[in-house]
Amino acid sequence: MSAVIVDSAVYRRGKRIVDDLAPSELGQVRKLACEPGDFVWVGLHDPTEAELATVEEQFGLHPLAVEDAFNAHQRPKLERYGDTLFLTVKSLWYVDADDAVETGEINMFVGDDFIITVRHGSGSELHTARRDLEARAKVLTHGPSAVVYAVCDRVVDGYLAVMDSLEEDVDEVETSVFSAERTNDSARIYTLKREIAEARRAVMPLREPMRRFASGAVPGIHQDAAPFFRDVSDHLTKVAEMVDGLDQLLSTAFDAHLAQIQVTQNEDMRKISAGVGLVVVPTLIAGVYGMNFEHMPELRWGLGYPFALALMVLSVTGLWIWFKRSGWL
Amino acid sequence: MSAVIVDSAVYRRGKRIVDDLAPSELGQVRKLACEPGDFVWVGLHDPTEAELATVEEQFGLHPLAVEDAFNAHQRPKLERYGDTLFLTVKSLWYVDADDAVETGEINMFVGDDFIITVRHGSGSELHTARRDLEARAKVLTHGPSAVVYAVCDRVVDGYLAVMDSLEEDVDEVETSVFSAERTNDSARIYTLKREIAEARRAVMPLREPMRRFASGAVPGIHQDAAPFFRDVSDHLTKVAEMVDGLDQLLSTAFDAHLAQIQVTQNEDMRKISAGVGLVVVPTLIAGVYGMNFEHMPELRWGLGYPFALALMVLSVTGLWIWFKRSGWL
Amino acid sequence: MSAVIVDSAVYRRGKRIVDDLAPSELGQVRKLACEPGDFVWVGLHDPTEAELATVEEQFGLHPLAVEDAFNAHQRPKLERYGDTLFLTVKSLWYVDADDAVETGEINMFVGDDFIITVRHGSGSELHTARRDLEARAKVLTHGPSAVVYAVCDRVVDGYLAVMDSLEEDVDEVETSVFSAERTNDSARIYTLKREIAEARRAVMPLREPMRRFASGAVPGIHQDAAPFFRDVSDHLTKVAEMVDGLDQLLSTAFDAHLAQIQVTQNEDMRKISAGVGLVVVPTLIAGVYGMNFEHMPELRWGLGYPFALALMVLSVTGLWIWFKRSGWL
Amino acid sequence: MSAVIVDSAVYRRGKRIVDDLAPSELGQVRKLACEPGDFVWVGLHDPTEAELATVEEQFGLHPLAVEDAFNAHQRPKLERYGDTLFLTVKSLWYVDADDAVETGEINMFVGDDFIITVRHGSGSELHTARRDLEARAKVLTHGPSAVVYAVCDRVVDGYLAVMDSLEEDVDEVETSVFSAERTNDSARIYTLKREIAEARRAVMPLREPMRRFASGAVPGIHQDAAPFFRDVSDHLTKVAEMVDGLDQLLSTAFDAHLAQIQVTQNEDMRKISAGVGLVVVPTLIAGVYGMNFEHMPELRWGLGYPFALALMVLSVTGLWIWFKRSGWL
Amino acid sequence: MSAVIVDSAVYRRGKRIVDDLAPSELGQVRKLACEPGDFVWVGLHDPTEAELATVEEQFGLHPLAVEDAFNAHQRPKLERYGDTLFLTVKSLWYVDADDAVETGEINMFVGDDFIITVRHGSGSELHTARRDLEARAKVLTHGPSAVVYAVCDRVVDGYLAVMDSLEEDVDEVETSVFSAERTNDSARIYTLKREIAEARRAVMPLREPMRRFASGAVPGIHQDAAPFFRDVSDHLTKVAEMVDGLDQLLSTAFDAHLAQIQVTQNEDMRKISAGVGLVVVPTLIAGVYGMNFEHMPELRWGLGYPFALALMVLSVTGLWIWFKRSGWL
Repeated sequence: MSAVIVDSAVYRRGKRIVDDLAPSELGQVRKLACEPGDFVWVGLHDPTEAELATVEEQFGLHPLAVEDAFNAHQRPKLERYGDTLFLTVKSLWYVDADDAVETGEINMFVGDDFIITVRHGSGSELHTARRDLEARAKVLTHGPSAVVYAVCDRVVDGYLAVMDSLEEDVDEVETSVFSAERTNDSARIYTLKREIAEARRAVMPLREPMRRFASGAVPGIHQDAAPFFRDVSDHLTKVAEMVDGLDQLLSTAFDAHLAQIQVTQNEDMRKISAGVGLVVVPTLIAGVYGMNFEHMPELRWGLGYPFALALMVLSVTGLWIWFKRSGWL
Repeated sequence: MSAVIVDSAVYRRGKRIVDDLAPSELGQVRKLACEPGDFVWVGLHDPTEAELATVEEQFGLHPLAVEDAFNAHQRPKLERYGDTLFLTVKSLWYVDADDAVETGEINMFVGDDFIITVRHGSGSELHTARRDLEARAKVLTHGPSAVVYAVCDRVVDGYLAVMDSLEEDVDEVETSVFSAERTNDSARIYTLKREIAEARRAVMPLREPMRRFASGAVPGIHQDAAPFFRDVSDHLTKVAEMVDGLDQLLSTAFDAHLAQIQVTQNEDMRKISAGVGLVVVPTLIAGVYGMNFEHMPELRWGLGYPFALALMVLSVTGLWIWFKRSGWL
Repeated sequence: MSAVIVDSAVYRRGKRIVDDLAPSELGQVRKLACEPGDFVWVGLHDPTEAELATVEEQFGLHPLAVEDAFNAHQRPKLERYGDTLFLTVKSLWYVDADDAVETGEINMFVGDDFIITVRHGSGSELHTARRDLEARAKVLTHGPSAVVYAVCDRVVDGYLAVMDSLEEDVDEVETSVFSAERTNDSARIYTLKREIAEARRAVMPLREPMRRFASGAVPGIHQDAAPFFRDVSDHLTKVAEMVDGLDQLLSTAFDAHLAQIQVTQNEDMRKISAGVGLVVVPTLIAGVYGMNFEHMPELRWGLGYPFALALMVLSVTGLWIWFKRSGWL
Repeated sequence: MSAVIVDSAVYRRGKRIVDDLAPSELGQVRKLACEPGDFVWVGLHDPTEAELATVEEQFGLHPLAVEDAFNAHQRPKLERYGDTLFLTVKSLWYVDADDAVETGEINMFVGDDFIITVRHGSGSELHTARRDLEARAKVLTHGPSAVVYAVCDRVVDGYLAVMDSLEEDVDEVETSVFSAERTNDSARIYTLKREIAEARRAVMPLREPMRRFASGAVPGIHQDAAPFFRDVSDHLTKVAEMVDGLDQLLSTAFDAHLAQIQVTQNEDMRKISAGVGLVVVPTLIAGVYGMNFEHMPELRWGLGYPFALALMVLSVTGLWIWFKRSGWL
Repeated sequence: MSAVIVDSAVYRRGKRIVDDLAPSELGQVRKLACEPGDFVWVGLHDPTEAELATVEEQFGLHPLAVEDAFNAHQRPKLERYGDTLFLTVKSLWYVDADDAVETGEINMFVGDDFIITVRHGSGSELHTARRDLEARAKVLTHGPSAVVYAVCDRVVDGYLAVMDSLEEDVDEVETSVFSAERTNDSARIYTLKREIAEARRAVMPLREPMRRFASGAVPGIHQDAAPFFRDVSDHLTKVAEMVDGLDQLLSTAFDAHLAQIQVTQNEDMRKISAGVGLVVVPTLIAGVYGMNFEHMPELRWGLGYPFALALMVLSVTGLWIWFKRSGWL
């Protein structure tokens, strides 16, 4: 049996009645789901074209939808082909090591008595979702709708987790921008904006399908599931607001960063000038006593030299105090 | 009795008829509210899961709504579960000490003959709202709708107060930006923008529920209450406009701040250059009279040295006047 | 009689039939307006709560609307309370002395046979509007609608005047930004943006009520008045476009101002550097002839000193010409 | 006959049947247009109030529309007064001498059997439009609608021409911004943005009337003309997109201009520093050999002086090469 | 036969039955397409006005549509003239040599039994599209709708390819902006933004026609083709999101570029100042020992000169270390 079918089973009244089906058995399996409320859940992971073709044939899927499910890299969307719904969602997760948001894809074919989940990428596993769902037989009796809800709920919970991580990153950037240290935060802000843009692409187009499920007006999705999808939809709206909020916050942080660079440059310039001032004034004094006039009384004084040095020290000290008071040093 | 039930009572024709109920009595209490127009108002504060479960059971609330009310951190929203309305509002208050806007949350379950308010956080107490309402028995005869109005009215009044405080902060920032002093306002502007973004998250999503109440088209909210909610809705629109207005003003102030930094840097640079000029010119003069030519008549003059010093002073004075006139010093 | 009632009269077929009523007579006055088409116009200015209460009672106004009319600081809005329309408009005028836009408020209660205008602030007087209207009896026969039109028309004409003044201010700023002089325009641009934001708050929300009047679909406003309100609505749209246009122009002007600061700084820097160059090169020459080598032929030359000075002058002149040609001086 | 009536004629089946009417004949002229399909076209240019009043009376125009046509400075708009349409369009043309966009105004009163065009400003002449139209009798048989189409088509073609000129200007600015020369483009960009804003005020509000004509749903405009107005509407959409496109391009160009200023400043600063370095290092060497120690062997060398000079030249050459290699000179 | 007719044929049940028709035969050819489902596909490339006129006459096309097809430079649009659909799409392709996006135009006249494709520009050839389509006879049986789909699908695939190339360019810019090298990326960012704006003009207006085809509500486009157009529409939405995403990313990259310039300038300034410091301090020491006091013990020391030189070296070394530690060198 190919590893591509991660798990597949027939459910009756919320319970698994047939287990771990081989691909060749898929044809017969639909016949096993013969009582009202029975349904098959086939879970695929990165299937080959041939494997998908088998499933397509067994469940009478539309070739365009199958092509989409195979190619991945779709936008989140909900489409109806005859009696079958086709739903694409993007899963997101956060990789701590490089502050990056990664994207997976889950495609679902939803019929009256079957659901096929096609997963791409490594991060969006549905194993625990299935286990949790099987533990709540009552929910599973709602059929494929329950599976769709469970997957969407899990994916959107993943969004919230990603947003929390990004929020922490933004907090760090904020601290760094306003720290006294000389930091170059623009690369980090840029990267975060890019990650947020990636999250946006997953989150925003999913709102419309969820809103439609929540309205209870999508044939094939159980009416009773509406309040649950309203919950998912709510969370999604919250995620969308966080995406917008973080993005705007980063823009503001970037502007503040620019201002900080300017302020720092200004301070550096004044420090430099003060430093130069501390050297050129005694140089002038040395220049004066380096003049070759025949009649310069100081040159003949026994303490002329210490007097000149004292003059230099005095001028430097005076300038120093003055610069300190004016906040230039 | 748990401290979590802050106050709960049965009202008949606008008057409290049963007082301070223990949680165990909640079951019976609904039976006391047996005449038309009677209703129970249960006020909870940061309840435990178990306590909410009791209330859920007594009043037949929807588990998803109860979960939301327990978790808090919801977006403001209005939802219908069967005969019960579920309304979430965010309260805001301003903490003067650190110029911060803080957020609380009030969840309301509104039925025909009951209202349950679930409050989170410290700032959004409803005690005085209840007292004021009890003082106006006529209003209370409208039942739960009157309580919803009283709470929303109070919350939105709180928004207006927060906006006034933020407006003062923006005025201060504005004064600081255009003051002659060297101020670094970007951190303050950033913080204010953040606070305003937080206020926005509370204010904006509440507009839709209030608009719906004002239209009188929400079953469970008394038709007669519509003009009152229209009033709340009006105030909310005003708050929303202030939020947008302050945000834009801060953006403009930030740009002006950037310009001020540039102008200051320009002025500093010219001052510095003038200062350097005042030193290098006499240094050149000293250099000239430090040359070792055999035939330099000035060196032999009796007053050569004072002459050179005078030349230096003259050049410095001349430059000083010139720089002053050109606005460089 | 209280000074708060600026003017009040009963009109029949466009003519005043009862004059300057005392507040105590307001009750009887409605009875005087007994023929079809008769109406009362009561004009109040900054009334006390008690005075408004009298009017509220006599004309059966809604307490919430009366509260709004008393508090002022409302957003422009149109509301219906039973048979009475409540309209709030903001008047604007321009104070030349400090380039400021000031705001007044006019509230109107419009019934079938009465109109009550409640004015706040000093700038929005309605005296001349009433006089002009009384001069056109035919228009007045349309009843309260004619008064509403006259007031709105006058207010919107005021907006146009304010916009013209602001346009002049923006032209001045523009000239200043691109002048060769060193100007600091950011404060002025900021202030203008603030004034424009204030105008926006008066103008934008009024568009919806005027559009509704223009559509002729507001009960209580005469159908025949629709083309006139369409005219007001048109002018308002023009004002709204000017508000947006000026705001964007100021943003562009601000950006140009920032660029000018940068360009100026660049020029200053190059001038300063050229100036420094003009001093350090002769200083180097002086340094060379200040060296103490035994065998330096120039030092023995009879014309060595003039030669050195000439060298200095030459180098300065050469640099001067070079800097001039490169545009650095 | 007043010069204000540029041309007026009665048309029957696409042919002029009565020519160059005097204003006094306008009354009779409508009677001449007695066959179905006949219509009068009166063309006015900057008419006086009295002249417009005559026309108003003869054709039963609405006083508000006549006032608008007299005042000019209207926004483009389409309004219905009874059986008469009132259309205002803005003509634009480009004045090469000062890169400016100028604005004219054409008002049209459109009845079943007449059209009155009122033109303001010098640039929007309709002479050739009338001549071209008269050359296509078949089109003219459609009556006033054909005239409206001809005028709008001509005006929108004018917009396209203006856009082409502005596009060239933007190309020039672009070349200038990225040229190696030190250019100050912000004033030019500002002016172009202002001209584009003026074009926008003419173009954008015209889209709605054209869309309505194109939909064929405006009584008084012939159904058969719909595809022609769709063509105009298409061109207008293209103009609107060009307006937006050029505006955004200029914003981007402005940002690039700011970056160029910064880069230039940076390069200047490095050149200046390198220049200073080339002077101060030999000055230090001269300073060293200007020290007065008794035991300085070099001072006694026969070739000490040339040696010192060589040292200076060497250091300058070394620095020069180093600066060149680092890209500082 | 003119080269302008690239290919034209009659199709019956998905097969070519008449081949490579001469223009003169076009009239008869429609008669050959006499069975239900037959259709003619005429492919033109940059036709002359006369050639188009022949086609116009043979197929009864609307003159306005033919004018548009001749002029090219239309916006993408879908229009109905009687029974004929007129569709304009823009093809895009990427020219690697100069990182430019180029634009072609394809106009289509779609009737029940014919489709005429008019192609402008060199990049948008339809040869392979026709060949691929002919290889799938089943698809071709859907008639002209199949051709429209094939062309649109190919064009939108071209958009995706262009977007991928632009994405690579943006990645390169990004790398360049954050590289340590001194790069001037603003010109490149500007060019890319311009190319993206050009792509936007092709992509955005096409979405509405594709959405309408996908809804199956356009008469003349086969109902069965709806899911296929939904696929095209999906890809187009993806392209539109990429256009927006890249544009925003470039804006952010530009801001980061500005920040990098500032940071670099700051670093340069500090390096320069440190360099100057390294020279002026030993110059001061040399100045001190160049003073002419009679009593300066060091001048008489045997090792005075080496001592002074050591002092200079020491001060330079000390400063060097200090600057290195502070990150100024």
